[in-house]
Amino acid sequence: MPANGSRPVNDTPDLADLATVLLRTPTALAQLGPEEARCVVDYMRLVAFPAGAIMLREGDQARTNYLLLVLSGEVTVDKADASPTEVLSLSVLGPGNVIGEMGLLDGAPRSVTCRAATPIQAAGLSRDALELLIDEQPRVAAKLMVALSQRMAERMRALDDQLGMYGQLTAAMQAEITALKQAKR
Amino acid sequence: MPANGSRPVNDTPDLADLATVLLRTPTALAQLGPEEARCVVDYMRLVAFPAGAIMLREGDQARTNYLLLVLSGEVTVDKADASPTEVLSLSVLGPGNVIGEMGLLDGAPRSVTCRAATPIQAAGLSRDALELLIDEQPRVAAKLMVALSQRMAERMRALDDQLGMYGQLTAAMQAEITALKQAKR
Repeated sequence: MPANGSRPVNDTPDLADLATVLLRTPTALAQLGPEEARCVVDYMRLVAFPAGAIMLREGDQARTNYLLLVLSGEVTVDKADASPTEVLSLSVLGPGNVIGEMGLLDGAPRSVTCRAATPIQAAGLSRDALELLIDEQPRVAAKLMVALSQRMAERMRALDDQLGMYGQLTAAMQAEITALKQAKR
Repeated sequence: MPANGSRPVNDTPDLADLATVLLRTPTALAQLGPEEARCVVDYMRLVAFPAGAIMLREGDQARTNYLLLVLSGEVTVDKADASPTEVLSLSVLGPGNVIGEMGLLDGAPRSVTCRAATPIQAAGLSRDALELLIDEQPRVAAKLMVALSQRMAERMRALDDQLGMYGQLTAAMQAEITALKQAKR
Protein backbone atom coordinates (compact mmCIF):
# COMPACT_ATOMS: atom_id res chain seq x y z
CA MET A 1 0.00 0.00 0.00
CA PRO A 2 1.32 3.50 -0.67
CA ALA A 3 3.15 4.51 2.48
CA ASN A 4 2.33 8.21 2.13
CA GLY A 5 0.05 9.14 4.97
CA SER A 6 -1.75 5.81 5.20
CA ARG A 7 -3.30 5.41 8.66
CA PRO A 8 -5.93 3.14 10.24
CA VAL A 9 -9.43 3.80 8.89
CA ASN A 10 -10.61 3.63 12.51
CA ASP A 11 -8.73 6.89 13.24
CA THR A 12 -11.58 8.63 11.37
CA PRO A 13 -14.84 7.23 12.81
CA ASP A 14 -17.07 8.71 10.06
CA LEU A 15 -14.98 7.06 7.35
CA ALA A 16 -14.91 3.79 9.30
CA ASP A 17 -18.73 3.85 9.36
CA LEU A 18 -18.80 4.63 5.63
CA ALA A 19 -16.32 1.84 4.88
CA THR A 20 -18.44 -0.62 6.87
CA VAL A 21 -21.52 0.30 4.85
CA LEU A 22 -19.71 0.32 1.50
CA LEU A 23 -17.98 -3.00 2.15
CA ARG A 24 -21.44 -4.58 2.19
CA THR A 25 -22.79 -3.05 -1.04
CA PRO A 26 -23.59 -5.45 -3.90
CA THR A 27 -20.56 -4.19 -5.87
CA ALA A 28 -18.26 -5.10 -2.94
CA LEU A 29 -18.86 -7.98 -0.51
CA ALA A 30 -22.59 -8.07 0.18
CA GLN A 31 -22.30 -11.52 1.77
CA LEU A 32 -20.62 -10.08 4.89
CA GLY A 33 -22.76 -9.37 7.92
CA PRO A 34 -22.57 -5.85 9.46
CA GLU A 35 -20.39 -6.99 12.37
CA GLU A 36 -18.11 -8.96 10.06
CA ALA A 37 -17.70 -5.90 7.83
CA ARG A 38 -16.88 -3.71 10.84
CA CYS A 39 -14.30 -6.28 11.92
CA VAL A 40 -12.64 -6.25 8.46
CA VAL A 41 -12.60 -2.42 8.51
CA ASP A 42 -10.65 -2.65 11.80
CA TYR A 43 -7.80 -4.06 9.70
CA MET A 44 -7.97 -1.52 6.87
CA ARG A 45 -5.89 1.60 6.32
CA LEU A 46 -7.03 4.86 4.80
CA VAL A 47 -5.32 5.97 1.58
CA ALA A 48 -5.92 9.18 -0.37
CA PHE A 49 -5.02 10.02 -3.97
CA PRO A 50 -5.18 13.44 -5.67
CA ALA A 51 -7.07 13.77 -8.97
CA GLY A 52 -4.97 12.38 -11.82
CA ALA A 53 -2.89 10.07 -9.62
CA ILE A 54 -2.30 6.49 -10.72
CA MET A 55 -3.64 4.25 -7.95
CA LEU A 56 -2.50 0.95 -9.48
CA ARG A 57 -0.31 0.60 -12.57
CA GLU A 58 -0.61 -2.32 -15.01
CA GLY A 59 2.53 -4.47 -14.85
CA ASP A 60 3.63 -3.12 -11.47
CA GLN A 61 5.42 -5.87 -9.58
CA ALA A 62 6.20 -4.09 -6.33
CA ARG A 63 3.76 -3.52 -3.46
CA THR A 64 0.91 -5.23 -5.27
CA ASN A 65 -0.42 -7.25 -2.34
CA TYR A 66 -3.41 -5.18 -1.25
CA LEU A 67 -6.92 -4.34 -2.32
CA LEU A 68 -8.64 -0.97 -2.16
CA LEU A 69 -12.29 -0.24 -1.34
CA VAL A 70 -13.23 3.10 -2.92
CA LEU A 71 -14.88 5.35 -0.30
CA SER A 72 -15.28 8.54 -2.34
CA GLY A 73 -14.41 9.79 -5.82
CA GLU A 74 -14.25 8.26 -9.30
CA VAL A 75 -11.69 5.83 -10.64
CA THR A 76 -11.08 4.93 -14.30
CA VAL A 77 -9.79 1.47 -15.13
CA ASP A 78 -7.63 1.01 -18.23
CA LYS A 79 -5.75 -1.83 -19.83
CA ALA A 80 -3.05 -1.45 -22.48
CA ASP A 81 -4.50 -3.02 -25.62
CA ALA A 82 -2.89 -5.06 -28.38
CA SER A 83 -1.32 -1.87 -29.70
CA PRO A 84 0.68 -0.28 -26.90
CA THR A 85 -0.31 3.27 -27.87
CA GLU A 86 -3.97 2.42 -27.77
CA VAL A 87 -5.69 2.10 -24.42
CA LEU A 88 -8.98 0.39 -23.85
CA SER A 89 -11.00 2.09 -21.15
CA LEU A 90 -12.65 -0.70 -19.24
CA SER A 91 -14.89 1.06 -16.78
CA VAL A 92 -15.43 3.82 -14.27
CA LEU A 93 -15.67 2.82 -10.64
CA GLY A 94 -16.87 4.69 -7.56
CA PRO A 95 -17.75 4.29 -3.88
CA GLY A 96 -18.39 0.65 -2.98
CA ASN A 97 -16.16 -0.77 -5.71
CA VAL A 98 -13.20 -2.97 -4.82
CA ILE A 99 -10.00 -2.90 -6.87
CA GLY A 100 -6.81 -4.92 -6.75
CA GLU A 101 -8.13 -8.00 -4.94
CA MET A 102 -6.15 -10.39 -7.14
CA GLY A 103 -2.94 -8.67 -6.03
CA LEU A 104 -3.98 -9.16 -2.41
CA LEU A 105 -4.18 -12.88 -3.10
CA ASP A 106 -1.18 -13.67 -5.27
CA GLY A 107 0.95 -10.52 -5.24
CA ALA A 108 1.36 -10.93 -9.02
CA PRO A 109 1.87 -7.87 -11.25
CA ARG A 110 -1.21 -5.64 -11.60
CA SER A 111 -3.32 -6.52 -14.65
CA VAL A 112 -4.95 -3.08 -15.08
CA THR A 113 -4.20 0.57 -14.44
CA CYS A 114 -6.50 2.48 -12.08
CA ARG A 115 -6.45 6.29 -12.16
CA ALA A 116 -8.06 8.76 -9.79
CA ALA A 117 -10.45 10.79 -12.01
CA THR A 118 -11.27 12.93 -8.96
CA PRO A 119 -9.67 13.09 -5.49
CA ILE A 120 -10.05 9.62 -3.98
CA GLN A 121 -10.42 8.26 -0.49
CA ALA A 122 -10.03 4.51 -0.22
CA ALA A 123 -9.70 1.85 2.47
CA GLY A 124 -6.87 -0.59 1.83
CA LEU A 125 -6.47 -4.15 3.06
CA SER A 126 -2.93 -5.50 2.76
CA ARG A 127 -1.80 -9.10 2.69
CA ASP A 128 -0.17 -8.60 6.10
CA ALA A 129 -3.46 -7.31 7.49
CA LEU A 130 -5.27 -10.31 5.96
CA GLU A 131 -2.81 -12.70 7.63
CA LEU A 132 -3.40 -10.91 10.95
CA LEU A 133 -7.16 -11.15 10.39
CA ILE A 134 -6.86 -14.91 9.73
CA ASP A 135 -4.87 -15.22 12.94
CA GLU A 136 -7.02 -13.06 15.17
CA GLN A 137 -10.50 -13.40 13.62
CA PRO A 138 -10.36 -16.58 11.54
CA ARG A 139 -14.13 -16.90 11.15
CA VAL A 140 -14.45 -13.36 9.77
CA ALA A 141 -11.41 -13.98 7.56
CA ALA A 142 -13.01 -17.14 6.17
CA LYS A 143 -16.24 -15.25 5.40
CA LEU A 144 -14.26 -12.44 3.78
CA MET A 145 -12.42 -14.94 1.61
CA VAL A 146 -15.66 -16.67 0.58
CA ALA A 147 -17.13 -13.28 -0.39
CA LEU A 148 -14.00 -12.29 -2.33
CA SER A 149 -13.95 -15.68 -4.09
CA GLN A 150 -17.59 -15.32 -5.10
CA ARG A 151 -16.79 -11.95 -6.64
CA MET A 152 -13.92 -13.53 -8.54
CA ALA A 153 -16.08 -16.48 -9.67
CA GLU A 154 -18.61 -13.99 -11.03
CA ARG A 155 -15.93 -12.10 -12.95
CA MET A 156 -14.41 -15.36 -14.18
CA ARG A 157 -17.76 -16.41 -15.62
CA ALA A 158 -18.03 -13.02 -17.34
CA LEU A 159 -14.54 -13.43 -18.83
CA ASP A 160 -15.55 -16.92 -19.96
CA ASP A 161 -18.60 -15.47 -21.75
CA GLN A 162 -16.41 -12.83 -23.40
CA LEU A 163 -14.05 -15.57 -24.61
CA GLY A 164 -17.05 -17.44 -26.04
CA MET A 165 -18.12 -14.31 -27.93
CA TYR A 166 -14.62 -13.81 -29.28
CA GLY A 167 -14.72 -17.44 -30.42
CA GLN A 168 -17.89 -16.77 -32.38
CA LEU A 169 -16.51 -13.50 -33.73
CA THR A 170 -13.28 -15.02 -35.04
CA ALA A 171 -15.22 -17.92 -36.61
CA ALA A 172 -17.46 -15.40 -38.42
CA MET A 173 -14.44 -13.33 -39.53
CA GLN A 174 -12.65 -16.44 -40.75
CA ALA A 175 -15.72 -17.35 -42.83
CA GLU A 176 -15.74 -13.83 -44.31
CA ILE A 177 -12.02 -14.05 -45.16
CA THR A 178 -12.55 -17.43 -46.85
CA ALA A 179 -15.50 -16.07 -48.85
CA LEU A 180 -13.56 -12.94 -49.90
CA LYS A 181 -10.60 -15.07 -51.03
CA GLN A 182 -12.88 -17.34 -53.09
CA ALA A 183 -14.60 -14.33 -54.68
CA LYS A 184 -11.19 -12.98 -55.71
CA ARG A 185 -10.35 -16.09 -57.74
CA MET B 1 -22.68 -33.91 -4.82
CA PRO B 2 -24.06 -37.10 -6.42
CA ALA B 3 -25.89 -38.93 -3.66
CA ASN B 4 -25.13 -42.39 -5.05
CA GLY B 5 -22.81 -44.12 -2.64
CA SER B 6 -20.97 -40.98 -1.48
CA ARG B 7 -19.42 -41.57 1.95
CA PRO B 8 -16.79 -39.84 4.10
CA VAL B 9 -13.29 -40.11 2.60
CA ASN B 10 -12.09 -40.98 6.12
CA ASP B 11 -13.98 -44.31 5.93
CA THR B 12 -11.15 -45.45 3.64
CA PRO B 13 -7.87 -44.52 5.40
CA ASP B 14 -5.67 -45.17 2.34
CA LEU B 15 -7.75 -42.84 0.21
CA ALA B 16 -7.81 -40.24 2.99
CA ASP B 17 -3.99 -40.31 3.01
CA LEU B 18 -3.94 -40.03 -0.79
CA ALA B 19 -6.42 -37.13 -0.71
CA THR B 20 -4.28 -35.32 1.87
CA VAL B 21 -1.20 -35.64 -0.33
CA LEU B 22 -3.03 -34.73 -3.55
CA LEU B 23 -4.75 -31.71 -2.00
CA ARG B 24 -1.29 -30.22 -1.52
CA THR B 25 0.05 -30.79 -5.06
CA PRO B 26 0.83 -27.68 -7.13
CA THR B 27 -2.21 -28.34 -9.37
CA ALA B 28 -4.47 -28.29 -6.29
CA LEU B 29 -3.86 -26.21 -3.16
CA ALA B 30 -0.12 -26.32 -2.48
CA GLN B 31 -0.41 -23.46 0.02
CA LEU B 32 -2.08 -25.68 2.61
CA GLY B 33 0.07 -27.23 5.31
CA PRO B 34 -0.13 -31.02 5.79
CA GLU B 35 -2.30 -30.75 8.92
CA GLU B 36 -4.58 -28.21 7.27
CA ALA B 37 -4.99 -30.52 4.27
CA ARG B 38 -5.81 -33.46 6.55
CA CYS B 39 -8.39 -31.31 8.32
CA VAL B 40 -10.06 -30.37 5.00
CA VAL B 41 -10.11 -34.05 3.97
CA ASP B 42 -12.04 -34.77 7.20
CA TYR B 43 -14.89 -32.80 5.59
CA MET B 44 -14.73 -34.46 2.16
CA ARG B 45 -16.82 -37.29 0.77
CA LEU B 46 -15.71 -40.01 -1.61
CA VAL B 47 -17.45 -40.15 -4.99
CA ALA B 48 -16.85 -42.70 -7.76
CA PHE B 49 -17.76 -42.50 -11.45
CA PRO B 50 -17.61 -45.31 -14.04
CA ALA B 51 -15.73 -44.69 -17.31
CA GLY B 52 -17.84 -42.57 -19.65
CA ALA B 53 -19.91 -40.96 -16.88
CA ILE B 54 -20.51 -37.23 -16.93
CA MET B 55 -19.16 -35.83 -13.66
CA LEU B 56 -20.30 -32.23 -14.20
CA ARG B 57 -22.49 -31.05 -17.07
CA GLU B 58 -22.18 -27.55 -18.58
CA GLY B 59 -25.30 -25.53 -17.83
CA ASP B 60 -26.40 -27.77 -14.95
CA GLN B 61 -28.18 -25.66 -12.36
CA ALA B 62 -28.96 -28.28 -9.72
CA ARG B 63 -26.51 -29.65 -7.16
CA THR B 64 -23.65 -27.48 -8.43
CA ASN B 65 -22.32 -26.37 -5.05
CA TYR B 66 -19.34 -28.66 -4.59
CA LEU B 67 -15.83 -29.17 -5.87
CA LEU B 68 -14.10 -32.46 -6.67
CA LEU B 69 -10.46 -33.38 -6.09
CA VAL B 70 -9.53 -36.16 -8.54
CA LEU B 71 -7.88 -39.05 -6.66
CA SER B 72 -7.49 -41.55 -9.51
CA GLY B 73 -8.36 -41.80 -13.19
CA GLU B 74 -8.54 -39.34 -16.11
CA VAL B 75 -11.10 -36.61 -16.72
CA THR B 76 -11.73 -34.75 -19.99
CA VAL B 77 -13.01 -31.17 -19.80
CA ASP B 78 -15.18 -29.87 -22.64
CA LYS B 79 -17.06 -26.69 -23.38
CA ALA B 80 -19.75 -26.33 -26.02
CA ASP B 81 -18.27 -23.99 -28.60
CA ALA B 82 -19.85 -21.31 -30.79
CA SER B 83 -21.47 -24.03 -32.89
CA PRO B 84 -23.45 -26.33 -30.61
CA THR B 85 -22.46 -29.46 -32.53
CA GLU B 86 -18.79 -28.64 -32.20
CA VAL B 87 -17.09 -29.23 -28.89
CA LEU B 88 -13.81 -27.74 -27.85
CA SER B 89 -11.80 -30.11 -25.73
CA LEU B 90 -10.15 -27.97 -23.11
CA SER B 91 -7.90 -30.34 -21.27
CA VAL B 92 -7.36 -33.70 -19.65
CA LEU B 93 -7.12 -33.75 -15.87
CA GLY B 94 -5.91 -36.39 -13.46
CA PRO B 95 -5.03 -37.04 -9.80
CA GLY B 96 -4.36 -33.80 -7.94
CA ASN B 97 -6.60 -31.66 -10.15
CA VAL B 98 -9.55 -29.79 -8.68
CA ILE B 99 -12.76 -29.29 -10.67
CA GLY B 100 -15.94 -27.38 -9.96
CA GLU B 101 -14.61 -24.94 -7.37
CA MET B 102 -16.58 -22.02 -8.79
CA GLY B 103 -19.79 -23.98 -8.20
CA LEU B 104 -18.74 -24.53 -4.59
CA LEU B 105 -18.54 -20.75 -4.21
CA ASP B 106 -21.54 -19.40 -6.06
CA GLY B 107 -23.67 -22.44 -6.92
CA ALA B 108 -24.11 -20.97 -10.42
CA PRO B 109 -24.62 -23.29 -13.43
CA ARG B 110 -21.55 -25.33 -14.39
CA SER B 111 -19.45 -23.64 -17.09
CA VAL B 112 -17.83 -26.80 -18.46
CA THR B 113 -18.60 -30.50 -18.86
CA CYS B 114 -16.29 -33.00 -17.15
CA ARG B 115 -16.37 -36.63 -18.27
CA ALA B 116 -14.73 -39.67 -16.70
CA ALA B 117 -12.36 -40.99 -19.40
CA THR B 118 -11.54 -43.90 -17.07
CA PRO B 119 -13.13 -45.03 -13.78
CA ILE B 120 -12.73 -42.11 -11.36
CA GLN B 121 -12.35 -41.80 -7.64
CA ALA B 122 -12.73 -38.26 -6.33
CA ALA B 123 -13.04 -36.46 -3.01
CA GLY B 124 -15.87 -33.92 -2.94
CA LEU B 125 -16.25 -30.86 -0.74
CA SER B 126 -19.79 -29.48 -0.65
CA ARG B 127 -20.93 -26.01 0.30
CA ASP B 128 -22.54 -27.44 3.45
CA ALA B 129 -19.24 -29.07 4.40
CA LEU B 130 -17.44 -25.76 3.77
CA GLU B 131 -19.91 -23.94 6.04
CA LEU B 132 -19.30 -26.59 8.71
CA LEU B 133 -15.53 -26.20 8.25
CA ILE B 134 -15.84 -22.41 8.65
CA ASP B 135 -17.82 -23.01 11.83
CA GLU B 136 -15.65 -25.70 13.37
CA GLN B 137 -12.18 -24.95 11.96
CA PRO B 138 -12.33 -21.30 10.83
CA ARG B 139 -8.55 -20.88 10.55
CA VAL B 140 -8.24 -23.90 8.24
CA ALA B 141 -11.29 -22.69 6.30
CA ALA B 142 -9.69 -19.25 5.84
CA LYS B 143 -6.45 -20.86 4.58
CA LEU B 144 -8.45 -23.12 2.24
CA MET B 145 -10.29 -20.10 0.84
CA VAL B 146 -7.05 -18.16 0.35
CA ALA B 147 -5.58 -21.14 -1.53
CA LEU B 148 -8.71 -21.55 -3.67
CA SER B 149 -8.76 -17.81 -4.42
CA GLN B 150 -5.12 -17.86 -5.48
CA ARG B 151 -5.93 -20.67 -7.90
CA MET B 152 -8.80 -18.62 -9.27
CA ALA B 153 -6.65 -15.50 -9.55
CA GLU B 154 -4.11 -17.51 -11.54
CA ARG B 155 -6.80 -18.80 -13.91
CA MET B 156 -8.32 -15.33 -14.20
CA ARG B 157 -4.98 -13.90 -15.30
CA ALA B 158 -4.69 -16.72 -17.86
CA LEU B 159 -8.19 -15.92 -19.18
CA ASP B 160 -7.18 -12.26 -19.32
CA ASP B 161 -4.15 -13.15 -21.43
CA GLN B 162 -6.34 -15.27 -23.73
CA LEU B 163 -8.69 -12.30 -24.17
CA GLY B 164 -5.71 -10.11 -25.05
CA MET B 165 -4.62 -12.62 -27.69
CA TYR B 166 -8.13 -12.75 -29.13
CA GLY B 167 -8.05 -8.94 -29.28
CA GLN B 168 -4.86 -9.07 -31.34
CA LEU B 169 -6.22 -11.88 -33.51
CA THR B 170 -9.46 -10.09 -34.36
CA ALA B 171 -7.54 -6.87 -35.14
CA ALA B 172 -5.29 -8.83 -37.54
CA MET B 173 -8.28 -10.55 -39.14
CA GLN B 174 -10.09 -7.22 -39.52
CA ALA B 175 -7.02 -5.79 -41.30
CA GLU B 176 -6.99 -8.81 -43.62
CA ILE B 177 -10.70 -8.39 -44.40
CA THR B 178 -10.17 -4.70 -45.17
CA ALA B 179 -7.21 -5.49 -47.44
CA LEU B 180 -9.14 -8.23 -49.27
CA LYS B 181 -12.09 -5.88 -49.81
CA GLN B 182 -9.84 -3.15 -51.19
CA ALA B 183 -8.08 -5.65 -53.52
CA LYS B 184 -11.50 -6.69 -54.88
CA ARG B 185 -12.34 -3.17 -56.06
